[in-house]
Amino acid sequence: MTAEGDPDEELLGRIFLARVIEPGDEAGGRWMREFGVGEVVRRLRNGGEPLPGASGTQWGGLVGRARRAEPERDLAVARAAGVRFVCPGDAEWPGQLDDLGDSRPTGLWVRGRPSLRMWALTSVAVVGARACTEYGAHVAGTLASGLAERGWVVVSGGAYGIDGAAHRGALAAGGATVAVLACGVDRPYPRGHTALINRIAEQGLVVGELPPGDHPTPSRFILRNRVIAALTRGTVVVEAACRSGSLVTARAAGRLGRFTMGVPGPVTSGLSVGVHELLRGDAVLVTDAAEVIELVGDMGELAPPRRGPVLPRDLLEPAARAVLAALPANRTAPAEEIASGARTTPDDAIARLYELRSLGYVERHGDGWKLTRQTMTSARGGRGPC
Amino acid sequence: MTAEGDPDEELLGRIFLARVIEPGDEAGGRWMREFGVGEVVRRLRNGGEPLPGASGTQWGGLVGRARRAEPERDLAVARAAGVRFVCPGDAEWPGQLDDLGDSRPTGLWVRGRPSLRMWALTSVAVVGARACTEYGAHVAGTLASGLAERGWVVVSGGAYGIDGAAHRGALAAGGATVAVLACGVDRPYPRGHTALINRIAEQGLVVGELPPGDHPTPSRFILRNRVIAALTRGTVVVEAACRSGSLVTARAAGRLGRFTMGVPGPVTSGLSVGVHELLRGDAVLVTDAAEVIELVGDMGELAPPRRGPVLPRDLLEPAARAVLAALPANRTAPAEEIASGARTTPDDAIARLYELRSLGYVERHGDGWKLTRQTMTSARGGRGPC
Repeated sequence: MTAEGDPDEELLGRIFLARVIEPGDEAGGRWMREFGVGEVVRRLRNGGEPLPGASGTQWGGLVGRARRAEPERDLAVARAAGVRFVCPGDAEWPGQLDDLGDSRPTGLWVRGRPSLRMWALTSVAVVGARACTEYGAHVAGTLASGLAERGWVVVSGGAYGIDGAAHRGALAAGGATVAVLACGVDRPYPRGHTALINRIAEQGLVVGELPPGDHPTPSRFILRNRVIAALTRGTVVVEAACRSGSLVTARAAGRLGRFTMGVPGPVTSGLSVGVHELLRGDAVLVTDAAEVIELVGDMGELAPPRRGPVLPRDLLEPAARAVLAALPANRTAPAEEIASGARTTPDDAIARLYELRSLGYVERHGDGWKLTRQTMTSARGGRGPC
Repeated sequence: MTAEGDPDEELLGRIFLARVIEPGDEAGGRWMREFGVGEVVRRLRNGGEPLPGASGTQWGGLVGRARRAEPERDLAVARAAGVRFVCPGDAEWPGQLDDLGDSRPTGLWVRGRPSLRMWALTSVAVVGARACTEYGAHVAGTLASGLAERGWVVVSGGAYGIDGAAHRGALAAGGATVAVLACGVDRPYPRGHTALINRIAEQGLVVGELPPGDHPTPSRFILRNRVIAALTRGTVVVEAACRSGSLVTARAAGRLGRFTMGVPGPVTSGLSVGVHELLRGDAVLVTDAAEVIELVGDMGELAPPRRGPVLPRDLLEPAARAVLAALPANRTAPAEEIASGARTTPDDAIARLYELRSLGYVERHGDGWKLTRQTMTSARGGRGPC
């Protein structure tokens, strides 16, 4: 039995394991790595001897959950709700999640049109306190708008407070945003953010490790944070009290070699205490989107190519090719105009434009989009863009 | 002719040069170092060939000022106003000012009872914007009170805004504070701070390079900042706009190997822009007095001795010895009680207590003072404190 078996068996096996094993369970991750997904599924279904590292009680709990798991049903429910399951090895899998080692998600449930892999390449997390101040909400919104206007994808946790302000800031700038939830992606949480999360799924992406219908728990919130940290090139904390969960995200980002940043605030505010603590450590103080991009835009393995597209135009998906073809040759155009030229919706056009940006074909300038110089040059020269 | 001549000639010579040469003039500093104070005075008085590095015009200007200089009169005027002149080589000269090299002050005019040298040993600069916000004033005042309550001396520039709030915070805590002026110390500037500066001279020290009656100029403000930076173990900036003079102080502190610190504020405030810029560089983010002391209290050549007094009790000045004798053996006492025991004023007692603290004899705890453990031990053992 190898780690990568039959694709369908692998997919259903991982959906099964996403139901049985809790997010971030390193023993489960080790089993998948050592025995392969198919074998771990069989052992859990058979309920025999525990796999190494699990106590009898733990194993009993897992076997009990395995008995109730119905991966085909989960997949059907998800598909009906427009949700797909992305696993390690898939074209859409964001490879940087593999940095999580054995705590890598079994797979991610994804709602929304864009490619998670493409979007994650140029993404930044903006997280912070739920009970934020007006100052914090203002700063998070402005920062997210600024990042979106410069073509960066804003990732957050969909929560009240800073998270919500960051998502809204990106959406308001006609930009890209990803909500990483600690529950099923078909079950928006918090309930008061149902409309916001649905809007994110329309214009961006809603993702999570937990199967359809599953509910959040305190430990799931904490473990969700490692996904936000690993997915993005850096994490910016805007307001956090002393023991805030967003500090967990920032520290996870640091351990993963991602950039950790903080926006300072008044030292008289309890909601800036956690951020200032981070900034007295290794985190970098940032005050606006330009400073964030100055840091995370620095070339690295996850950085967008600066010398033009790396993927030949012929290999683009037809929908992305249509959007690329709709960009005018020598000026900036709004997403609506490009959408109309590509005969698609503005939300779909935006999804494709961010993917094309990750690939180096286009740039965002304020409210509009234009071809990169490299794309124009290669088009004029009659050669393909690589 | 040597660099250090007859003490009176040296004193009057330096008073003469403080009138003729502008603060921070490195050519003047080099002449004093190379030719000695007496020789530079003679050459300026004679008005012959320019000393090396001065153009004819510059030399002419200096000779003109030399013609009008009356050092004996300056000294008499100063003494009448309770002002002394402290020169390099004097017992009260703060040796760390020598780190300024050829831009070292020719000497310092000093108003107030305490020993400048002793106080400077455990001092921190708190500086910032003149047109500060209420937030900045609150933070500067609280920080200065906290530093004073822990026995640290707060140095600032006597200006409106952050400087004034810092001085007031230290005074309000019955603490030690030093104002370094960019004008004659008998001529408080700004005028609106006359009462404050007089109060500082009563309870602390008012010092400056400029002779009695001299007025401040923009360049004198800037050059004064190097004295604040050199005198203290570190500089904390509380609110500073983009090109604030307090950033000059902080950068000078950094070049001199002192600690540079900044208190963050809202990123939406123009008055925190300069501080955040510092904090994105090498400055350390601090949010309260404890964090400042954690940094500057770290042992270094300027740090107060941690293993008890370094100066034998017999060598203390009589006034300091009287105050030391008035401290109760095994409890904390307020300055008023100690003053009454030593038959002096509370202001004088505070001046001596801070000196005794610099020497390792006493500690400040909140509103009171007590003997250090080393002082008590050595007293019980019947041996001298060294």
